[in-house]
Amino acid sequence: MKELSVLLDLEAGRPIYEQIYDYIKREIREGKLKFETKLPSTRALSEHLNVSRSTVQLAYDQLVSEGYIESRPCRGYYVLKLDGLYDLTAVEYKEIHRSISQTVKYEIDFSPSGIELDNFPYNAWRKVSKNVMAEELDLFNIGEPQGDYSFRETIASYLHESRGVNCSPDNIIVGAGDQYLLMLLDRLLCAEHGNISYAMENPAYRKAYFVLNGMGRTVIPVPLDEYGMNVGVLRNSGAQVAYVTPSHHYPLGIVMSIGRRMEMLGWANEQQGRYIIEDDYDSEFRYRGKPIPALQGLDHNGKVIYIGTFSKSISPGLRISYMVLPDTLMDSYAKVGIRYSNTVSRIDQNIVNLFIKEGYYERHLNKMRGIYKTKHDALLAALKKMGKGYRISGESAGLHILLSSDKLSEVEMVQRAGRKGVRVYPLSEHYLDSHEEQNTIILGYARLREEEISRGITLLSEAFNEKNM
Amino acid sequence: MKELSVLLDLEAGRPIYEQIYDYIKREIREGKLKFETKLPSTRALSEHLNVSRSTVQLAYDQLVSEGYIESRPCRGYYVLKLDGLYDLTAVEYKEIHRSISQTVKYEIDFSPSGIELDNFPYNAWRKVSKNVMAEELDLFNIGEPQGDYSFRETIASYLHESRGVNCSPDNIIVGAGDQYLLMLLDRLLCAEHGNISYAMENPAYRKAYFVLNGMGRTVIPVPLDEYGMNVGVLRNSGAQVAYVTPSHHYPLGIVMSIGRRMEMLGWANEQQGRYIIEDDYDSEFRYRGKPIPALQGLDHNGKVIYIGTFSKSISPGLRISYMVLPDTLMDSYAKVGIRYSNTVSRIDQNIVNLFIKEGYYERHLNKMRGIYKTKHDALLAALKKMGKGYRISGESAGLHILLSSDKLSEVEMVQRAGRKGVRVYPLSEHYLDSHEEQNTIILGYARLREEEISRGITLLSEAFNEKNM
Repeated sequence: MKELSVLLDLEAGRPIYEQIYDYIKREIREGKLKFETKLPSTRALSEHLNVSRSTVQLAYDQLVSEGYIESRPCRGYYVLKLDGLYDLTAVEYKEIHRSISQTVKYEIDFSPSGIELDNFPYNAWRKVSKNVMAEELDLFNIGEPQGDYSFRETIASYLHESRGVNCSPDNIIVGAGDQYLLMLLDRLLCAEHGNISYAMENPAYRKAYFVLNGMGRTVIPVPLDEYGMNVGVLRNSGAQVAYVTPSHHYPLGIVMSIGRRMEMLGWANEQQGRYIIEDDYDSEFRYRGKPIPALQGLDHNGKVIYIGTFSKSISPGLRISYMVLPDTLMDSYAKVGIRYSNTVSRIDQNIVNLFIKEGYYERHLNKMRGIYKTKHDALLAALKKMGKGYRISGESAGLHILLSSDKLSEVEMVQRAGRKGVRVYPLSEHYLDSHEEQNTIILGYARLREEEISRGITLLSEAFNEKNM
Repeated sequence: MKELSVLLDLEAGRPIYEQIYDYIKREIREGKLKFETKLPSTRALSEHLNVSRSTVQLAYDQLVSEGYIESRPCRGYYVLKLDGLYDLTAVEYKEIHRSISQTVKYEIDFSPSGIELDNFPYNAWRKVSKNVMAEELDLFNIGEPQGDYSFRETIASYLHESRGVNCSPDNIIVGAGDQYLLMLLDRLLCAEHGNISYAMENPAYRKAYFVLNGMGRTVIPVPLDEYGMNVGVLRNSGAQVAYVTPSHHYPLGIVMSIGRRMEMLGWANEQQGRYIIEDDYDSEFRYRGKPIPALQGLDHNGKVIYIGTFSKSISPGLRISYMVLPDTLMDSYAKVGIRYSNTVSRIDQNIVNLFIKEGYYERHLNKMRGIYKTKHDALLAALKKMGKGYRISGESAGLHILLSSDKLSEVEMVQRAGRKGVRVYPLSEHYLDSHEEQNTIILGYARLREEEISRGITLLSEAFNEKNM
C-alpha cells in the first residue's frame, strides 16, 4: 500500500479535506497512483495525517463521486482507470491542474478566517504612520527585547480597562504573532520546569497545537462541555499547562462560565509549575450581555499567562501580538527570554501605540462591533428561516457561528453547499484526535456583506432541504 | 555557598562581565549577600552561567578593586563588610542603584553592535512608505507564510546579483530576524532528520547559540584556524549541521578561504542529512579585494541553507531577515513550515521591496560602504600609532576589528580603557566553552564619528602604555 505524503497547506485557508482530495486527484492524474492501487483506509490516513477520520472520509467521498476511486465493500478504496492522462508532461499537467482548481468556484465563502477591511480607517492609519516616521528616527535602531516601553504601557492600560487584566508594562512581551509568542513561552516554561506537557481544548485552534506539538511537547486533548474545558479530565491528564480560550472558544464559541474559570484556577493552584495560557484572540467582539473580564484578572497566584493580538481588531497583516507573563515567570524571562531579540518592527509598534493613544483604536473597535453585530444578526435571522432540524451555537461572540443538522452529516452539508457554490467549513478538522462523525459546520461572516450572508443562507437552505441532491 | 542566579541581560548591549559585577554588587548592597559569604569560584560560576572563566574573573577583579569582596589565597572570594547599606528601602535602593549605574560613564563606546543611522535615507524611506500605504490596502490582510511573492522575487534577484546565491523566490522564507528563522529551520531539520546536533564556530555569534541550545539541541563548539572552521574537528564531532559565517566570521573577522569552503561542502556531501547554515550577516561591507560570493553558490547538492538580514544594511529596528532553503528541505517546509504564519508585517515587506526596486537600497549601500570604509581606515591609522606589541585582525570586512596585546590580558585592557572613559569589549564572552585567558578586545566603529575613533584610540594608547595604572 502506497504511503500518501499529502502536503497539508493549512495556511492558505483551504479546508484540509479539499487538500487531501486535491492531492490524491493529482497523484492519480499524474499517474503516480496507478489503476488498481489500494488507498490507505480512512482510519490509517487520518492517523497518519493527524486529522479526523471524517475529514478523510469527506475527501474520499468526493473522489468517489467524481469517479477517481471506488469503494469496494469489505476491501477498501481503489484507484479507477483514467485513460489518456498518464503521459502528461509537467507543463501540461500544471495547466490541467490549474483548470481543475478553477472549476470549483464559490459564489459565497463563509470562511472563518480574516476580518472585514472595508471600514478600516486608512486615513487615520496613514496620518499616524506619517507622524511616527517624521519624528522618531531612533526607531531604526534596535529596541528592547520585550518591545518598546511606551507601547507596553499603552497595552497595559488598554488591557486593564477593557479586559480587567492586572498587569504592568514590565510583564508584557510584544511579539510577531501568537505562534511566535507560544514558541518563546514554551522556552521559558521548559527552562523553569523541564519538558512541559500541555492540555488543549478539543477541538482547538490548530495553529497553536502545531507549535506546541512541533516543539516536541506532549499535547493532551481535553474535551469541553457547555461551560468550557472539563477540569476532571484535565486533572487526570497529568498536563502541567492548560491552553484555553475562555472568552470565546475556538471553534465552538463556548464562553467559559465563571464557575469553570474558578475551577481552572483551582486546578492551577493545586501544584507548583501549573499554568493556564489564556488566549483571548477575539474578545473584542461580543454581542450579548456584558463583556466578560479576562480569566487573568481572577488570578492572584501568578498562574495565568494572557495572550492577545491585534490581528482581529486591527489587521492580521500587521503581525502584532502580546503576552502578559505572571511575576512567577519573569525570572525565567530575565534569564532565557531576554536572549531573544524582539520580532516586531519598532516603527510598527509606535504606529499602533499612537493609533491607540489618539483614540483611533477605540473608535474603530466600536464601529466594527456595530458592523459585525449587524452581520451576525443578519446571519441569525437568515438561519431562522431554514426550518426545523437545525441548531445554532457559539453565537454570543466572535466572528463565526456553528450550524448543526439533525439529518445531514458534516460531509453531506459541505458537499451539498459546494454544489450550490457556497463554501462552508467542516468542524471536524479542528479536532486533535480521530473523532466520531460530526454534523456541524462553521460559518464565518466577517468578510461577507449582509446581502451575501442572506443569499448564502438561502442557497444553503435549498441545498440542505432538497431531497435528491 | 549561595547560588548566584545572575540575570544575564544580553540584549541591552551591556558586557556580560559588567552584568555579573552589577548583580553581585547589588546583592551585597541590598544585604542579600552578607559579610563573610563565600562566592562561587570563577570556574563554578563560569560553568553555571555558561560564560568564559575570564569573564567572571573580570567581574570579580572589579569587585575586589572597589572593595566589595576580597580574594583570600587558597580559599576563594569573600564578601567584605559594608556598613550602613543593609537597611535600605526598595525606593532608596533604586535611587542608589541608579546613581551607581551612572557613575560609569563612557566618553567613547567601541560597541560592535548597532549601525550608523546619521546617513539613513529617511526621505526616500518616507516616500516609499507613503506610496506603499497609498496603494496597497490589501496589505492589511494576512499574507503567504513564506512572505509576499514579489518581495521574495526582489530578494532572489538581489542575492543572485550581489552574492552569487542560486535561488528561486519559491525557496525564500522571510522572517522576523535571524533568531526566529533559526527556530523555524530547526523545526524543519528535526521534522526531517530527528533530533539534530549542531556544530558552531568557537567563538561564535551567541544569539544563534542561545536559540539552538535553548531548543534543547546539542551544540558542539568547533575551533577555527585562519581559514575558517576546522573541518577535521567538525568531522569527528558527529554534528549533522554546521553553522558558519564564511564571509566574515563573527567575532574573529576571518574570511573562510575557498579551499575551506570546498572542504566544508565535501563534509556535507559525505552523508545524507548533513547541512551547512551560512549566516551572511554583514557581507555587504567589505574593504579589501573583490566581494567573495556566498558559499551557497558553490553548492550543487542542496546542502547549504543561506541566511541574510536587512539589520546591518538597512536597520536593526525593522526586524527583517530571510532564509534560502535548498530544494532538499522544501518538502519539509511544505509539511511543517507552512503551518507557521509569516512574522513580518506585509506593509514592511512591501516598503523594503519598493526601497530595493527603486534603487534606493543600492545607493544607500554604496554610500554606507564609503562611510564605513572611511571609519575603518581611520581606526586602522589610529591603531598604527599605538606602538609595538599590538596585533590587529579581522580588518578586511564588517563593522568591527580585533586588537590583541602582547603584554596585557583582555581583563587588563578592558579595565584600563574603562578608567579612561573608553568602553571596549572582551573577546572571551563569545566563546561557547570555558577558555584560556584572552588578550584580545573587540572594537566596533559603526556608530562612532571619525574624530571619536581617533580620540578613543589616543585614550586607549595612553591607558595601555601607562606603567602604573
